[in-house]
Amino acid sequence: MPGVEDVKTFDIVFEGKARSSGKMRCDVDVEFVTTKEKFSVATDEGAIHGGDNSAPPPLALFTGALTACLMTQIRAFAKRLQIPVANVEIFASLRWRAEQTGNQPYVGEPVGFDLDIDIDSEASLDEIKQLLDAARKGCFLEATLGQTNEISHRLRVGGEWIDL
Amino acid sequence: MPGVEDVKTFDIVFEGKARSSGKMRCDVDVEFVTTKEKFSVATDEGAIHGGDNSAPPPLALFTGALTACLMTQIRAFAKRLQIPVANVEIFASLRWRAEQTGNQPYVGEPVGFDLDIDIDSEASLDEIKQLLDAARKGCFLEATLGQTNEISHRLRVGGEWIDL
Repeated sequence: MPGVEDVKTFDIVFEGKARSSGKMRCDVDVEFVTTKEKFSVATDEGAIHGGDNSAPPPLALFTGALTACLMTQIRAFAKRLQIPVANVEIFASLRWRAEQTGNQPYVGEPVGFDLDIDIDSEASLDEIKQLLDAARKGCFLEATLGQTNEISHRLRVGGEWIDL
Repeated sequence: MPGVEDVKTFDIVFEGKARSSGKMRCDVDVEFVTTKEKFSVATDEGAIHGGDNSAPPPLALFTGALTACLMTQIRAFAKRLQIPVANVEIFASLRWRAEQTGNQPYVGEPVGFDLDIDIDSEASLDEIKQLLDAARKGCFLEATLGQTNEISHRLRVGGEWIDL
C-alpha cells in the first residue's frame, strides 16, 4: 500500500550478574533476555594491578565487543542488501587517558576511537559505502558511544537499596 | 610543597585486530599497548542470526566489560582509599531498541543502562558512597558512555584507504 511504511521496533535486552572472585577477577553471567541465551564472561587484571591474569581486562573485552559489533552488522547487512562480501578485517585503536592527583584514585576519560575497515568485496565503492553506513547505524555500540548516556546506579548497603 | 599539586596523566591504549571467520564469528587479537599484553577475544551469533553460537555475541562481551570495569575500579580504589570491601556484586540491565522499515537494515539506539551495586563492607555509608563515586569516575567505560564520542572510520577498498 503506497504511503504506508511497515515500521517495526524490537527490543534488545542484556542482563549481567557480576561477582568478584579471585584477587581482581570478575565473573559475569550474561543473559540475552530476548532469546533466553546465557553466556559466561570473565575479566581479570595482570599482576601489576594485583590480579592473576586469568582472563582479559575489561577494556580488552570492550575492544572485542566494539569491533565485533560493527563487523557482525557488516556481514548481516551485506546479506540483507545483497552486497557480496568475502572477508572483513577491522583494526581498532581505542585510547583513554587517566589523570591522577598524588596517590588519589585517578579519573578516566576517552581520548579517541579509530576504526580502519578492510572489506574484501567485488561490489562498487558506492555499495560498500552504503553497507558501512547501514552497519554503523545498526551497530548498537556505535549508537551508544555516539550519544551521551546516563547510567543509573543503585547501591545496596546493609540490605537497603539507595538510588544515587 | 604547599600549593603545588602533584598531577600526572597516563595513557591507556588498546588495539584490536578483528577478522571474520566462520559464518558470523569474529576473532579479535587485542593488545594492551601500554603493557604489551595480548589477549584473544571472540564473538559469534546464534543460529537464528546465521551463526554457530561458538562464542558470546558482541553485546554479551560489552555487558561483561561494563560491569567488570566498574567492579575492578571499586576493588582497586577500595585498597587505595583504605575502605574495607569484601565481596562485590553488580546486576546490570542494558537495553537497546532497533527500528526497522520493511526489510531494510535496522537502526539501533540505546534505551537505558541500570547498574545495581551490592557492596559487602563494614565501612560507613559515606565511605561506600565515596568509593563508588571514585570508581565511577575512574571507570573508563562509564566515562566513555557519559559523553558523545566521535568514532573515526577509514575504509579500504581495492587497496586504497578512504576517510569517511
